[in-house]
Amino acid sequence: VITLKPNNLVEKFQEIRSQTEDICRPLEIEDHTLQCMDDVSPPKWHLAHVSWFFEEFILKPYVESYREFSAEFGFLFNSYYNAVGVRHPRPKRGHISRPTLKTVLDYRHYIDNNMKDLLVSAQSTEIMRRIQIGLHHEQQHQELLCTDIKYNLFCNPTYPTYNSELSENICGPSVPTWCNYEGGLVDIGAKSDTFAYDNEFPRHQKFLAPYALESRMVTNGDYLQFIDAGGYQHSEFWLSEGWDFIQTNKQFAPLYWLKKDGAWFEYTLAGLQPIDLSGRLAHISYFEADAYAAFRKCRLPYEAEWEHAAQAVLPKSFFILDQNNNEELKQPLGDLYGVGWQWTIDSYLPYPGYRAESGALGEYNGKFMCNQQVLRGGSLFTPKNHIRFSYRNFFPTNTRWQRTGIRLAKSL
Amino acid sequence: VITLKPNNLVEKFQEIRSQTEDICRPLEIEDHTLQCMDDVSPPKWHLAHVSWFFEEFILKPYVESYREFSAEFGFLFNSYYNAVGVRHPRPKRGHISRPTLKTVLDYRHYIDNNMKDLLVSAQSTEIMRRIQIGLHHEQQHQELLCTDIKYNLFCNPTYPTYNSELSENICGPSVPTWCNYEGGLVDIGAKSDTFAYDNEFPRHQKFLAPYALESRMVTNGDYLQFIDAGGYQHSEFWLSEGWDFIQTNKQFAPLYWLKKDGAWFEYTLAGLQPIDLSGRLAHISYFEADAYAAFRKCRLPYEAEWEHAAQAVLPKSFFILDQNNNEELKQPLGDLYGVGWQWTIDSYLPYPGYRAESGALGEYNGKFMCNQQVLRGGSLFTPKNHIRFSYRNFFPTNTRWQRTGIRLAKSL
Amino acid sequence: VITLKPNNLVEKFQEIRSQTEDICRPLEIEDHTLQCMDDVSPPKWHLAHVSWFFEEFILKPYVESYREFSAEFGFLFNSYYNAVGVRHPRPKRGHISRPTLKTVLDYRHYIDNNMKDLLVSAQSTEIMRRIQIGLHHEQQHQELLCTDIKYNLFCNPTYPTYNSELSENICGPSVPTWCNYEGGLVDIGAKSDTFAYDNEFPRHQKFLAPYALESRMVTNGDYLQFIDAGGYQHSEFWLSEGWDFIQTNKQFAPLYWLKKDGAWFEYTLAGLQPIDLSGRLAHISYFEADAYAAFRKCRLPYEAEWEHAAQAVLPKSFFILDQNNNEELKQPLGDLYGVGWQWTIDSYLPYPGYRAESGALGEYNGKFMCNQQVLRGGSLFTPKNHIRFSYRNFFPTNTRWQRTGIRLAKSL
Amino acid sequence: VITLKPNNLVEKFQEIRSQTEDICRPLEIEDHTLQCMDDVSPPKWHLAHVSWFFEEFILKPYVESYREFSAEFGFLFNSYYNAVGVRHPRPKRGHISRPTLKTVLDYRHYIDNNMKDLLVSAQSTEIMRRIQIGLHHEQQHQELLCTDIKYNLFCNPTYPTYNSELSENICGPSVPTWCNYEGGLVDIGAKSDTFAYDNEFPRHQKFLAPYALESRMVTNGDYLQFIDAGGYQHSEFWLSEGWDFIQTNKQFAPLYWLKKDGAWFEYTLAGLQPIDLSGRLAHISYFEADAYAAFRKCRLPYEAEWEHAAQAVLPKSFFILDQNNNEELKQPLGDLYGVGWQWTIDSYLPYPGYRAESGALGEYNGKFMCNQQVLRGGSLFTPKNHIRFSYRNFFPTNTRWQRTGIRLAKSL
Repeated sequence: VITLKPNNLVEKFQEIRSQTEDICRPLEIEDHTLQCMDDVSPPKWHLAHVSWFFEEFILKPYVESYREFSAEFGFLFNSYYNAVGVRHPRPKRGHISRPTLKTVLDYRHYIDNNMKDLLVSAQSTEIMRRIQIGLHHEQQHQELLCTDIKYNLFCNPTYPTYNSELSENICGPSVPTWCNYEGGLVDIGAKSDTFAYDNEFPRHQKFLAPYALESRMVTNGDYLQFIDAGGYQHSEFWLSEGWDFIQTNKQFAPLYWLKKDGAWFEYTLAGLQPIDLSGRLAHISYFEADAYAAFRKCRLPYEAEWEHAAQAVLPKSFFILDQNNNEELKQPLGDLYGVGWQWTIDSYLPYPGYRAESGALGEYNGKFMCNQQVLRGGSLFTPKNHIRFSYRNFFPTNTRWQRTGIRLAKSL
Repeated sequence: VITLKPNNLVEKFQEIRSQTEDICRPLEIEDHTLQCMDDVSPPKWHLAHVSWFFEEFILKPYVESYREFSAEFGFLFNSYYNAVGVRHPRPKRGHISRPTLKTVLDYRHYIDNNMKDLLVSAQSTEIMRRIQIGLHHEQQHQELLCTDIKYNLFCNPTYPTYNSELSENICGPSVPTWCNYEGGLVDIGAKSDTFAYDNEFPRHQKFLAPYALESRMVTNGDYLQFIDAGGYQHSEFWLSEGWDFIQTNKQFAPLYWLKKDGAWFEYTLAGLQPIDLSGRLAHISYFEADAYAAFRKCRLPYEAEWEHAAQAVLPKSFFILDQNNNEELKQPLGDLYGVGWQWTIDSYLPYPGYRAESGALGEYNGKFMCNQQVLRGGSLFTPKNHIRFSYRNFFPTNTRWQRTGIRLAKSL
Repeated sequence: VITLKPNNLVEKFQEIRSQTEDICRPLEIEDHTLQCMDDVSPPKWHLAHVSWFFEEFILKPYVESYREFSAEFGFLFNSYYNAVGVRHPRPKRGHISRPTLKTVLDYRHYIDNNMKDLLVSAQSTEIMRRIQIGLHHEQQHQELLCTDIKYNLFCNPTYPTYNSELSENICGPSVPTWCNYEGGLVDIGAKSDTFAYDNEFPRHQKFLAPYALESRMVTNGDYLQFIDAGGYQHSEFWLSEGWDFIQTNKQFAPLYWLKKDGAWFEYTLAGLQPIDLSGRLAHISYFEADAYAAFRKCRLPYEAEWEHAAQAVLPKSFFILDQNNNEELKQPLGDLYGVGWQWTIDSYLPYPGYRAESGALGEYNGKFMCNQQVLRGGSLFTPKNHIRFSYRNFFPTNTRWQRTGIRLAKSL
Repeated sequence: VITLKPNNLVEKFQEIRSQTEDICRPLEIEDHTLQCMDDVSPPKWHLAHVSWFFEEFILKPYVESYREFSAEFGFLFNSYYNAVGVRHPRPKRGHISRPTLKTVLDYRHYIDNNMKDLLVSAQSTEIMRRIQIGLHHEQQHQELLCTDIKYNLFCNPTYPTYNSELSENICGPSVPTWCNYEGGLVDIGAKSDTFAYDNEFPRHQKFLAPYALESRMVTNGDYLQFIDAGGYQHSEFWLSEGWDFIQTNKQFAPLYWLKKDGAWFEYTLAGLQPIDLSGRLAHISYFEADAYAAFRKCRLPYEAEWEHAAQAVLPKSFFILDQNNNEELKQPLGDLYGVGWQWTIDSYLPYPGYRAESGALGEYNGKFMCNQQVLRGGSLFTPKNHIRFSYRNFFPTNTRWQRTGIRLAKSL
């Protein structure tokens, strides 16, 4: 969580805003306009959209003297806020060659300058709250930038490298064990005195039967056993919709896996690499996660089971641009946070007593509560301070371009 | 629930099997082969499929002398049991003109005769269990026959009448009130000594916060207010996926509603009728149910809330072919059972500790636990004895051809 | 050509109308409502549509006392005449279970009775002309009935037999030769004193370079050589659009060919049969026809080449319901007429000076002159008297459910 | 036609290669990777592909010392030559961010340098022939660059300007008259002693009935009358497939026309402009051309009619980057060449006696001879020397992003 105080505001703002541009730095200009599938946005679009957020929700309503950078940007860089007006259709974001990257960077700096003036003056609670949302929003898009850049580069037949120094496989080998929990009536959801999105509230009671979580996430090596055992060919492991989906879309391995001359390779930000067997499996759909669990005669965790366990573990970050000491990863549940999003068995639903934010900012979470699964834990692509026990990520069951993996669970 | 005892077996079997044919009796031969959308099956297919179920799971494995009626029927009339072998693709069931209706009826009687021989002889527990499943299975298809026949006839531009004596609007006017519940730790799920599908087990504890249910379901008149208030034109009431869906599919009224010269009509089994304002709203999607609840600043019930309330109410049936005294409908929660399926806010997930049936019969429920919503209560199209407090029906969020409606809820 | 004279009117009318019902006689009621792909219409629809034609274009405008059979039939059974009003969408003709077959047959007899009254009274030239068009129109639908029935029955996984006495392979073996033509300035198109559709007029001059036609159509045996030589795997034989089409639709053999245990079978109206090597190849697309010609280093004929040759040959019919002496088939060009439609290299375009019929009847031909290929010669499914040298049939390049085959040609 | 002689080879080569880069000069780097619909290719792709053509068909086979620039470019920049091997799928050309524009320009210069070495040395006839094809090929892509750049920029919601100095409406007002032709037996096709594509051969005789062509192409003002008369709402003017197409795709005006506050605007390379009524209509489909002709009770010309007339007129060019004296445009048939492609009524078919080039170069024309219409005359986007009386351009009937317009014709 980003903690904003009057005396660190400018610094925090600058730190997060810079990180967004750092993520794009290794790219060519040409890479910034790519949108290789509908779910992905061009990096240039992300750079502009997160800036538009500050313009639309803070500068325009609260800074009287503020002069809009461009009348067209609201239309171009609104993501999905119906309340804010019409917008450019999502699947056509890759058609936006103008404004150029240079103009978008100018836009960012224009917004930054205007925001800095605001940050040093006295702020109302509401402005502070919106700045905090804006910065968390930008961190969310930093994660999307990582996933979208990876996907776009992968669609280049030449499999270009983003940065050959980076590793996506930071966990060494370890033997899994089971961590048991008694359950009972537990408290779930964010505490009211911390920052969290509206979907993490209200904190409420939940009854859990005894359960266990596996001490580490499923590895590439584990999953290879599933593949080699014909996992993709046996309908009995699969949800009905999943079975149809993999046939129709010919998905018989994780998204970035390729077989060349009998050996498996994985595309990473460091280019095409031989599979690391102890690496944590990533980029699989909910269908694949569920099928693997069935193959292992286990199940995925309920989100409250995961959260109950996580409340006893300190959140950690292994953000890919900022990797250093990974020693603690070897502990049981060492990869609970910050390595890979873990599919839960739960659909993304409102907590009892949930209330959406009011106004356009309220379009943030509630309207997606349907046909999506909850994911927990954060990943190598999640920025520091954006990981917490109550955080509820959510994606449709067929999604794979996020760093999505598996932690096994079972009822006791 | 169908209670089978050694001395009522033949009678119960005959009663349920006859009812299936009764449902088809008003149809022309031509109506029996129609499949006007992928979700719907031709009545002839239902007639054959439920018979194949007895052949495949009882006669073939348990009656040594049994001789298969036709080697091709397994391929034609298997619905989705991967474990039983390849099958005819679902969207092409309407291509099956042969066997003719006459042959399918012969098939039914052949199965009936063979089953009767089995029913009068001594049975093992396993056979009894399978007969029970087979009869419940047939009752489920009786409901589908009603919904599918209605849909197919509606696709005829002439809107033919199934039976002009039947009414789908059996509830008189009433003013809704709120029924309050304290919640707490409650027991949910079927009791182990009664028949229920595997997805209703195991009975388990659930913690509920205080809540309220509205005393009656939403009426056509209620929903008309939503339409007249521009409900379909205001994105703020809608789930994001729902909003896109209604635009793409131009759904701006319940499935069977038609506007002629400014007045609303509803297609029913008795043909096109003027809207009955006190009739309970039916044939709406989860998207519409959720939007209506948002419009009313309420929400849909969690399935455990519904079940907790329902455990205190005696199940009732108002099966459309068997209507008589509807007096009790006027009581608060009088339409909790048997009038319309009520969308719940919960996705269809396994209960903690859920175990699927083993073998092909285990493909019945578990493999659909993804991207569907739970519905509770039964409808006018649900046969008697097929309604119980623990029954979990489930359909995708965009489904409308079932009799699906709304009961409002709120957190207290 | 049907020659109508005052004294044979009733007889001719009755003869053609009866033949339509004869074609449907072997069918079950269930077969009459099937529409297994968009291009196909249910037999019941054909039965009604050809009757509606007489009602709409003759009885209503010319018989004052005529009372419409049903107000709804115009909407249900109009095929594509925009000028006549809105109509039921073509791909949903299979949704029409009502009127039943019985009612449609009643409709036919009602129309017949009303027409007979008209036929015995004095007629204007315009009525005579319209009756003639109506009867040719009905004959066209007789051919479609044959092709559509064959397709629909084939979609039944049990491959039912229409009539086990009928053979679709009536030509014995023969060695092909080349028939040479000098070309020059030739006359093409129907002569003005005979009945023909508007698209066969005006008769006009065309210059032809010297060319040759093969003395018989391509046989199943010939085509098997193409398959065995990898014809479907070599892009160099294929039009670019054809190559893409066969990959996308996985078409690697003629429509009704099936391989079982290494041997080729062909579905015919007499059920599944081993391939007859001397049978004339049928049910292939223009793409396949063109690829085969390329494989043989020949080409398909221009339509004027075909017609110039055909003007010297007497039209023959081998209509499948009326087969007898096929002796003449052994002559060179013995299968020029009445065995299989022959794809020409020409697109379906208006002849210079073409004028469409005026009024709704003018929607018959001209509006389809785009993205279709001309076929010549008639087939086993073409009724007697519906075959002539100037007849221009036309279908899109990917069409296969008609009896479409190949006659090779080359420039000299 | 580009006339290559030993002493002008280097100069000609350089002139044409430079013009390609000139066309791209006003673009931003970001514009070079855009592919806003499947038919369009990114400018960067065109720049590379035309260079690959020289590499693949000349440098590799004829220059022993030549070293390939990159092993991957064959896969990336092959357009459709099946004979040359697998290739990147066309609709995903916009996914290619790497190589960057800079690398592609390096590639161009590398090819240029290697070609120049070859050009100054002695050449075989075959090399000369291939250079000529390569240069014509590059000119074809210059036209596509213009059309694709226009389309891509138009897809930017900000309608950016390519070059505000350029006009696409260079013809002043003029009153149309009819130019009559007697027809008879005429010679059609390229003469054997000039350069032409294989599809323009062999020169052959064709019989033409008397006909007339309108003295100028249809103008925007003419077409506005069609729109205002409800042309898009009356099915009787339209081909059946065209009528369905415009409904499905909601095409009720030419591609680049937009109505703002009741006034029509047209997007051009100079940005959004008010409609110029005397400008020649462009960017319409064959369906629209045919409907307009029907509305005017005329027809489109047969391609031989157009060519017969054109053989008596000197080809002219008004290439958009090279505009100067347009005085001659005011003459009858002054816009026969070089203003807009004119849809003909003829499908794109082989001339009698047509033989495709052998080898991979033979994949150039013949394999597209199906479901396309011939267009004649060249346009403002056609480079100088790429316009001739026998030139056969071809596009599918629903294509609009080319500069396609109408010249009316009629039979006399």
